[in-house]
Amino acid sequence: MRMLTRSDANFAAELDELLNVSAEDTSAVEHTVADIIADVRRRGDAAVLEYTSRFDRLDFRDAARLRITPEQLAHHAAQTAPAVREALEAAAARIRSYHERQAAPSWQYSEPDGTVLGQQITPLDSVGIYVPGGKASYPSSVLMNAIPAKVAGVKRIVMTVPTPDGVINDVVITAALVAGVDEIYTVGGAQAVAALAYGTDTIRPVDKITGPGNIFVATAKKQVFGKVGIDMIAGPSEICVVADAATNPDWLAMDLFSQAEHDEDAQSILISDSQALLDAVTASIERLLPEMERADIIRKSLAARGGMILCTDIDEAIEVVNMIAPEHLELCVDQPERLLTSIRHAGAIFMGRYTPEALGDYCAGPNHVLPTSGTARFSSPLGVYDFQKRSSIINFSAEGAATQGRVASVLARAEGLTAHARSAEYRVEGDAGGQTGQRQ
Amino acid sequence: MRMLTRSDANFAAELDELLNVSAEDTSAVEHTVADIIADVRRRGDAAVLEYTSRFDRLDFRDAARLRITPEQLAHHAAQTAPAVREALEAAAARIRSYHERQAAPSWQYSEPDGTVLGQQITPLDSVGIYVPGGKASYPSSVLMNAIPAKVAGVKRIVMTVPTPDGVINDVVITAALVAGVDEIYTVGGAQAVAALAYGTDTIRPVDKITGPGNIFVATAKKQVFGKVGIDMIAGPSEICVVADAATNPDWLAMDLFSQAEHDEDAQSILISDSQALLDAVTASIERLLPEMERADIIRKSLAARGGMILCTDIDEAIEVVNMIAPEHLELCVDQPERLLTSIRHAGAIFMGRYTPEALGDYCAGPNHVLPTSGTARFSSPLGVYDFQKRSSIINFSAEGAATQGRVASVLARAEGLTAHARSAEYRVEGDAGGQTGQRQ
Repeated sequence: MRMLTRSDANFAAELDELLNVSAEDTSAVEHTVADIIADVRRRGDAAVLEYTSRFDRLDFRDAARLRITPEQLAHHAAQTAPAVREALEAAAARIRSYHERQAAPSWQYSEPDGTVLGQQITPLDSVGIYVPGGKASYPSSVLMNAIPAKVAGVKRIVMTVPTPDGVINDVVITAALVAGVDEIYTVGGAQAVAALAYGTDTIRPVDKITGPGNIFVATAKKQVFGKVGIDMIAGPSEICVVADAATNPDWLAMDLFSQAEHDEDAQSILISDSQALLDAVTASIERLLPEMERADIIRKSLAARGGMILCTDIDEAIEVVNMIAPEHLELCVDQPERLLTSIRHAGAIFMGRYTPEALGDYCAGPNHVLPTSGTARFSSPLGVYDFQKRSSIINFSAEGAATQGRVASVLARAEGLTAHARSAEYRVEGDAGGQTGQRQ
Repeated sequence: MRMLTRSDANFAAELDELLNVSAEDTSAVEHTVADIIADVRRRGDAAVLEYTSRFDRLDFRDAARLRITPEQLAHHAAQTAPAVREALEAAAARIRSYHERQAAPSWQYSEPDGTVLGQQITPLDSVGIYVPGGKASYPSSVLMNAIPAKVAGVKRIVMTVPTPDGVINDVVITAALVAGVDEIYTVGGAQAVAALAYGTDTIRPVDKITGPGNIFVATAKKQVFGKVGIDMIAGPSEICVVADAATNPDWLAMDLFSQAEHDEDAQSILISDSQALLDAVTASIERLLPEMERADIIRKSLAARGGMILCTDIDEAIEVVNMIAPEHLELCVDQPERLLTSIRHAGAIFMGRYTPEALGDYCAGPNHVLPTSGTARFSSPLGVYDFQKRSSIINFSAEGAATQGRVASVLARAEGLTAHARSAEYRVEGDAGGQTGQRQ
């Protein structure tokens, strides 16, 4: 792990280097994905079947078979261990309960002249959730994407998941059933995103696509954006842990591991005001790492992207946090509450020594889909608000229109938009001129 | 204007054709913009000065001169007619008052075991507002972009506006002052977007860029997305008017004109259950069009993209509205309130005969930056929420961590993420095992 010291003259440059993710050249992927999307738009189910055969070695002649039947769903759900099902249900209940507090209500207010203004909030009609196949197929992500949509009131939640060689992940299916997903298709990659965005005979189109995926899926989501909504394009996952000298170093080592085990690009950063604590955590890492199941990935991740930052005090540590704008922030300190208002940028804030990120990944309640790579400076966790949209409501009384029509007329004429001005002026003259909105 | 009838067998296809905006090939623009952004990242101010000289014929040797000084601002503001300044202030007050109702508060709640969950809502640190130069330089757009940012609590609001040949729009400057913009630079195009996203010695970077612009600006915004946040990429503006037989056809014609006068790609659609009303509006259009200042643009826009749709009743008209998901929706009918809950998709809903879109464009209060091209199916008007972001708050008590750590452990092991599991298990064992979060 790289060691940085806040008081070093070139700290800012070193931090930039630590945080920097080298951008790959994605132009080849972009062309491949554009071709797949164009093909699915043109040939629909036939193209989807062909790509599914090519990439997932899954040969169906009839596109209807891409949809998992209720009988299949029941079969796979029954294969899930009762303890796992119970844990999914417990997690789902907490996620639901937290997200219900995010549902925003419509509102209106009246002005003295009778004019009404407001905002009507409605759910999206339909949402597509992409779930990766293979090793990165996480049941917890199914809950985190589907439950906010369900709470928002989305009527139709569609899930696509690639099933290479026809192997279906029982726990993913169980999570989908627990979360209330309405339709599940065994399609993946750019062809799944294209089908969700543009629709085929078998898969009706949706209004927004969320969920993680590989570079082909991420690129496809970018390309269909505008036709449908999408969630953020996630970078590598990262954690930033602020810890004081009193924290158990084994716990901290394991929290850093829990991020690093995701993949070699994942980033784990520990910030402290105690060199002794940083040394102790280094020792814990050395002692605990060999016994970890995913030791290889953790070792590579920590070597390539891990970092420890020494600060003079915890307030300085929080300044560094705001420079990083981390996806996950742990505050392993006494009285973490007193730091809260100083934190300007973070996806999720895990407060105190009993709140490891792992709890937030599964069952704390808040979403685990969070802004990565410093985008917490301007974006938010996935939430109910991502599955609702707003419509402005404007209802002028004749009196209000007469008053505001004058204002609009002045500004429209200043902008040279005279039809705008006259449209407003008709309403100003409405009563006085003897003419009204009613047809004569 | 094209005439469609809802009951026609091929109505859906005809509507698609009416709504369809042919996508241009933008690959040449994309390359040009990518080069400009790379150049500004590499050479900073020198590149910005060079492009400003080339595109706007504005030659400064010193980049500091790109920033409009307080003296210049005062000078330009003084050139604005008092009536226009008063109208800007009146509009700003209404916009501010409406948007203050959108500001979301942070929230927290406690669970019986002492665990605290919540969401902390904070403003973005800094925002860049792009304002187009020349004819499309609208003071009203300055208000609509800057005021929500100000209400959100954004500390630094930066505006860039190209000033070809050094000509500065007095009213735009006045609007910026009224709205509370903090810094104004006379830079436009992709170079302005690049400077806002990556920063130069003169222009410090911002966290999000909003505001309309031409194809170069829109493409640049897409390309810097991820480094900074952006607002929607707007398509041509459009209006959909639902009117019953009792509405004054002259008013309707002028409302359609007010959209069509924006540009030739703008779209005006009138939906009614009365053929007589449609005929009367056609007659009004013919009579009123010759006297309009922007008659040429209006004529071309109505011919290319205008449409009238005949329905059997108003409920059917609302179904068509939901198929269109219009940016602006006027409900020129009696008791528009009774239709409100049936409208699933619209950027802004203008209710009743005294609420023309023009009022919403300037001074009704709600934002005039709205989702276009059917994107109201999944997106919302620009608002205070676009300038705030959320951080999840999670603070487990030891008791809560012990309970939920068990759930997390089961799910983490089901996903094969054992460092996650052990990180959670440390907190389960915390008390029972005699080990605590405190360093031994």
